[in-house]
Amino acid sequence: MASVDPRVYAVIMAGGGGTRFWPLSRQRKPKQFLSIAGEQSLLQTTWDRALEIVYGPENVIVVTANDYESMAHEQLPDLLQENLLVEPQARNTAPCVAWATAVIRDRDVDAVEVVMPSDHLITDVQAFGSAVTTAVEASRDHGVLATFGITPRYPETGYGYIEAGTTLSSAGDSSIEVFRVEHFREKPDFETAEGYVSAGNYYWNSGIFVWTAGGIWRSLEEYLPEVCSAAKRMIEDVDPEARAVAYAEMPGISIDFGVMEQAKNVVIVRAGFDWSDVGSWAALHEASVKSEGDNVAFGEIAQIDSTGNLVHAPDTRVVLLGVDNLVVVHTDDAVLVASLERSQDVKLLRERLEALGLDHLL
Amino acid sequence: MASVDPRVYAVIMAGGGGTRFWPLSRQRKPKQFLSIAGEQSLLQTTWDRALEIVYGPENVIVVTANDYESMAHEQLPDLLQENLLVEPQARNTAPCVAWATAVIRDRDVDAVEVVMPSDHLITDVQAFGSAVTTAVEASRDHGVLATFGITPRYPETGYGYIEAGTTLSSAGDSSIEVFRVEHFREKPDFETAEGYVSAGNYYWNSGIFVWTAGGIWRSLEEYLPEVCSAAKRMIEDVDPEARAVAYAEMPGISIDFGVMEQAKNVVIVRAGFDWSDVGSWAALHEASVKSEGDNVAFGEIAQIDSTGNLVHAPDTRVVLLGVDNLVVVHTDDAVLVASLERSQDVKLLRERLEALGLDHLL
Repeated sequence: MASVDPRVYAVIMAGGGGTRFWPLSRQRKPKQFLSIAGEQSLLQTTWDRALEIVYGPENVIVVTANDYESMAHEQLPDLLQENLLVEPQARNTAPCVAWATAVIRDRDVDAVEVVMPSDHLITDVQAFGSAVTTAVEASRDHGVLATFGITPRYPETGYGYIEAGTTLSSAGDSSIEVFRVEHFREKPDFETAEGYVSAGNYYWNSGIFVWTAGGIWRSLEEYLPEVCSAAKRMIEDVDPEARAVAYAEMPGISIDFGVMEQAKNVVIVRAGFDWSDVGSWAALHEASVKSEGDNVAFGEIAQIDSTGNLVHAPDTRVVLLGVDNLVVVHTDDAVLVASLERSQDVKLLRERLEALGLDHLL
Repeated sequence: MASVDPRVYAVIMAGGGGTRFWPLSRQRKPKQFLSIAGEQSLLQTTWDRALEIVYGPENVIVVTANDYESMAHEQLPDLLQENLLVEPQARNTAPCVAWATAVIRDRDVDAVEVVMPSDHLITDVQAFGSAVTTAVEASRDHGVLATFGITPRYPETGYGYIEAGTTLSSAGDSSIEVFRVEHFREKPDFETAEGYVSAGNYYWNSGIFVWTAGGIWRSLEEYLPEVCSAAKRMIEDVDPEARAVAYAEMPGISIDFGVMEQAKNVVIVRAGFDWSDVGSWAALHEASVKSEGDNVAFGEIAQIDSTGNLVHAPDTRVVLLGVDNLVVVHTDDAVLVASLERSQDVKLLRERLEALGLDHLL
């Protein structure tokens, strides 16, 4: 299924922080490095997915933060040293895309990029490959910036939506539909989200993009010229201090807000694959295959009259007895027992642990 | 406060098994040996309580089962070897009382016994001592068999009740009331229990008894003569095999059913102390001092918008977020998360663990 086109590059964005999967995620080990949904980390499954659509490791660029450099090498032994871009400081996605694009254009001016976050969950790799093939063709043939749109399964209020317009004519021979973008929509309230879902032409914005290196570079030059010029300096001067200065000059802006919502040549490729940004324990439960009683377990559990729970405890046994809609997470120094619907209240949790002098657990 | 009467003996019954406090309790380590309510085990706090009412360790008899002999010595370093009675096999309380009484009568025919289970929770040691003093006087002066009656705090259906009759006249100078027993009542249904509580003259049967050694011996001879004769042989012949034969001959009957419910000279001493038989995690929650949000924690916990929970996790940190009325128990090889009201369903739990091939966790 792999489109083994040697001009296709994967860019994996792996610089994000966050402790929304506490107690599994910590400041020193954010979500993408965690095995929250199986034995491999989300970064590792993203890497494997990338290898399905590119020629080999030489065509996979990983962008990460200073603190995570050694973890990235550890988790991805096949990652080439020259393909790991270590950001001097935390920025947003536009600087990340710009730097990776500068690197890729320098190698192949006709390259096509598939840009993907490192912490999303996609299990149907074959459908992912098909969608990428369609998007690569569209970006080459029509000079468009493509984003994958996910058919919403329910009125999620935590995602941005994209309103699809007319179908892009002659988008290859593929049976996968490609639409022009009518509007990007911010995270909606619940009623609005319900409207989007029933309308039928709204998609979740996956944050996975396909474009030619030349195409995104032109758009960056048009909408974020200061990001572009700093990105150029990142590849011209390898001195760490010069790079730090250049990176610091870039505005911390997202590629969605900085480019996609401005550009006129953006299209939606309808994703035939399952997708979740697994932004919380509740989202992981939603995205996972359920066992008996709608429970999801990573680790050995026994459940008695218990439904809708998520257990993450690979190193012990958990017995659930008469409990519903909980998340139970066990690590070697902490246990979380939360209601699934409250499991994204990480801010409260941080505050409480800090108030108790337990900051070291964060 | 201690009534340091050298003729008072404490008999601690520590032979029971059971896994109702799973995963803390296991077949090899039942409840009385567990530190479920603090740093000391229930047996150790019972020992300390016994020492408050007797002259010294020479006056404390502990009866336990074969499997627990070394654990008893380990937890009670001051226990005298000759005061540990190791039952050749599991029997009920009547054989246990009979054997201990035979031993005590052999040392002092005028002794008074305070017989107590090893796994109850009593924190007001001073009030316990006062009640014992009253009961000791009543048993000596009136030749009665005394049991402590606990004023019911709520309509518990898991306890037996005792209906109090008329006050025993001139039961010493004590302000603690002593009543004749009208009836013993089996564990009631909820409505009946409500009736008992509102009636005002019903007490929880604590299972803690005070009597003269001669008094209980006469009753044993009257109601359970075969237990009595076997108990005599237990002290006459120390050969292990002979003892095993003698013990096996005793019927496995409780002292409540075998003697107390038959005898005419039984009185209730109204207990001024707090008491719980802590028969389940829910009972432990009920009997424990609550912290913020009606939570009870043994170990370091952080709670956010969580009420009515019991956490037992001295070796880790537990964070509760938006959960109510749960029991969370953490041990080195298992974690239980149960609704408090279901926490006594140990039978189901056993069956499930056995079905999963996890019997070794029981």
